[in-house]
Amino acid sequence: MAYRVGVIGFGTVGSGAVKVLLENRSQVARRAGMDVAVSSIADLDWETDRGLDLSQIKKSTDGWELIRDPEIEGVVELVGGTTIAKEFVIGALENGKDVVTANKALLAACGPELFSIAAKNQRKIHFEGSVGGGIPIIQSLYGGLASAQINEIYAIINGTSNYILTEMQEYGHPFDTVLKEAQNLGYAELDPTYDVEGVDAAHKITILASICFNTQVNLNEVYTQGIRDITVEDIQFGETLGYRLKLLAIAKDLGNEVEVRVHPTFIPKNRHLASVSGVFNAVNTYAEGLGSTILYGRGAGDLPTGHAVVSDLIQCAQDSLARRPIDYSNFYTPRKSLRPMSDIIAEYYLRFLVEDRPGVLAKIAGVLGDHNISILSVLQLESEGSQCPVVFMTHEAREGDVLHALEHIENLDVVLAPAKRIRIEKMNSRKN
Amino acid sequence: MAYRVGVIGFGTVGSGAVKVLLENRSQVARRAGMDVAVSSIADLDWETDRGLDLSQIKKSTDGWELIRDPEIEGVVELVGGTTIAKEFVIGALENGKDVVTANKALLAACGPELFSIAAKNQRKIHFEGSVGGGIPIIQSLYGGLASAQINEIYAIINGTSNYILTEMQEYGHPFDTVLKEAQNLGYAELDPTYDVEGVDAAHKITILASICFNTQVNLNEVYTQGIRDITVEDIQFGETLGYRLKLLAIAKDLGNEVEVRVHPTFIPKNRHLASVSGVFNAVNTYAEGLGSTILYGRGAGDLPTGHAVVSDLIQCAQDSLARRPIDYSNFYTPRKSLRPMSDIIAEYYLRFLVEDRPGVLAKIAGVLGDHNISILSVLQLESEGSQCPVVFMTHEAREGDVLHALEHIENLDVVLAPAKRIRIEKMNSRKN
Repeated sequence: MAYRVGVIGFGTVGSGAVKVLLENRSQVARRAGMDVAVSSIADLDWETDRGLDLSQIKKSTDGWELIRDPEIEGVVELVGGTTIAKEFVIGALENGKDVVTANKALLAACGPELFSIAAKNQRKIHFEGSVGGGIPIIQSLYGGLASAQINEIYAIINGTSNYILTEMQEYGHPFDTVLKEAQNLGYAELDPTYDVEGVDAAHKITILASICFNTQVNLNEVYTQGIRDITVEDIQFGETLGYRLKLLAIAKDLGNEVEVRVHPTFIPKNRHLASVSGVFNAVNTYAEGLGSTILYGRGAGDLPTGHAVVSDLIQCAQDSLARRPIDYSNFYTPRKSLRPMSDIIAEYYLRFLVEDRPGVLAKIAGVLGDHNISILSVLQLESEGSQCPVVFMTHEAREGDVLHALEHIENLDVVLAPAKRIRIEKMNSRKN
Repeated sequence: MAYRVGVIGFGTVGSGAVKVLLENRSQVARRAGMDVAVSSIADLDWETDRGLDLSQIKKSTDGWELIRDPEIEGVVELVGGTTIAKEFVIGALENGKDVVTANKALLAACGPELFSIAAKNQRKIHFEGSVGGGIPIIQSLYGGLASAQINEIYAIINGTSNYILTEMQEYGHPFDTVLKEAQNLGYAELDPTYDVEGVDAAHKITILASICFNTQVNLNEVYTQGIRDITVEDIQFGETLGYRLKLLAIAKDLGNEVEVRVHPTFIPKNRHLASVSGVFNAVNTYAEGLGSTILYGRGAGDLPTGHAVVSDLIQCAQDSLARRPIDYSNFYTPRKSLRPMSDIIAEYYLRFLVEDRPGVLAKIAGVLGDHNISILSVLQLESEGSQCPVVFMTHEAREGDVLHALEHIENLDVVLAPAKRIRIEKMNSRKN
């Protein structure tokens, strides 16, 4: 008995998944309860040598061939993007096949449509590879963490930006230099927009939040800010004050509302996430009773994500004998609204470039006070000439109030440039 | 439709599991695809108020009543120990019921027998709560990590001893003082033997190694050394040299042989496991291709372990509709033998108390060299009177050679006390 698989898209992850299936065949069969065999692969490129023995596998240039093949029970979509990939996923589901995908962009953008089609056709979409590569976070949410009402998620889920921030922090090189380095090493794409602008992390946190909070999350509403504007200076000021800068994906279930956002964030250096460095990823969930749980591992790469895809195929194979129920309504049912950013509560790092003369600190502090923003600490360094940077760390404040205060402060004649504002997240410090 | 559960043993974890089932009922039903309802609870103590509304639940003082109850599909064994608990588990399996247990002692000692009975009766034993409390490690091994051939496990899986070591390191208090403190706080039992002697960790690593390495592991053969002999002095010497002391459970698949052992271990301070402190647990697995994965969270407690039990019940409920295959042969088939401790390769911390006179260092170094043990670094502190401690850190050496060398060294007249020997584990540093 074998579970037969068709793989559409034979790039990095596709090759990784096929390699895992070929090399770990007995391990996979033991866990699945049957052989899991790649029947066909579809890709336009059959020139590239993937270094795999494909003699037992049909090669195609048309994904639809696999979708129509009655022998194939599970379709792996690794084409990427949201156009043809979407058609393949819908086609496979409507042809009665389960789908495995690592396509977070597709799931975040078209999840409501795709999961409702899956539900209607009583087929499944598995997507362990879509978040955190080799980290078993998705199956844990449906498995070992299934009984927990998770209400906070803090995640480092973009390896490229975490690598860049780690290098900037450790070696003091500016963003552009480190980005080029990352591109040379293959850690960043030639067009790094999705990674450094936070879009990729937004895709992933949209998926996690929807599963944990049982509500549809609209990607378009997710606040997304990348790391392009981050300077070494800010990273170092933060370190001095006891914080490390991370591109953090944050999601909180507040009852009727949820917060889902991605932005550069200072976290206390003694938190475990602060020591997640380089291309590694980590997802920290918090649930009442269960407390804090962290899953850490490789966030990307052919074999880590390939393993995720194969672990999903093992689930598919088991379902082919005995189909377990699954509830996808969270993906297409908007049960909770997204809290507007102006209403979120956070602590803030505010850096100003000011004239070096008496009374400046007091003026800024006065405006902050007028807007109900109280100050935790101030860092003023020796001036270079007539200007100097001043950093205020605030207590918790409403974002809208902070923005109003900054408008006023930037109009002061002693303030020489727009403020640099970075949110601080202490995470569940009181509850750990 | 509901999946009906009987709970035998209504102590800490039992109360936690029932609380999770009552309070997270809709979350559990959503994941399970049906209601999961506690039908009966058996315990001898019905005096203690657990603060739960048990009006819908039958109360019994006899576990066998539940096992014979045809309405009950899943039996939760939380009695503990290896005598009557074993009878209950066997009884339930033979009565056609799936079993959920958190009883690591039972599974480690009687796993071969219990899992073969489960296989024969085509029932399942779920045991997420047996290792790492609320950490979803077991289901991840069968789920998101299922395709990976894990060949190294490094785990901090005893909260009591980790709490004690953390306090000793942070405050410099001796073992006995901290143990009493831990007992007062409820972090250590009145009889702390299992925890501080490494037995509990040995139970857990036996289970993990058997799953990952696909072979029966005999608990009796697992080298188990606790933390009673650890002194603050050794912890501090280690810190000076860049290492942190942990009670580490280690398992390695070496092909035909496996290593499974528990002992105080120095790990480099920059490893993630080094910052797992207090009662928290973490399991670090390593697999080719997938790399390093770490799962971190609360290792014990009513609600974390209660969640683990309920997550297992969700699997049971899904199986009641659609029974997935599972292979338990690893638990009762000895496929690989345990490497004898004298053959393991490790780096060592060796502390000697010596006379403070010229030539002593050279003498000890000479004996080490004669036994093929090369020295990485030496730490000699100022002497107090005529004696002084000397610490040697070695390169990798065979344990048998180290023991022979120590025999010789302890016979030198300049050496005043038996050596203190602590193994060092760098973990997968080259591969991370």
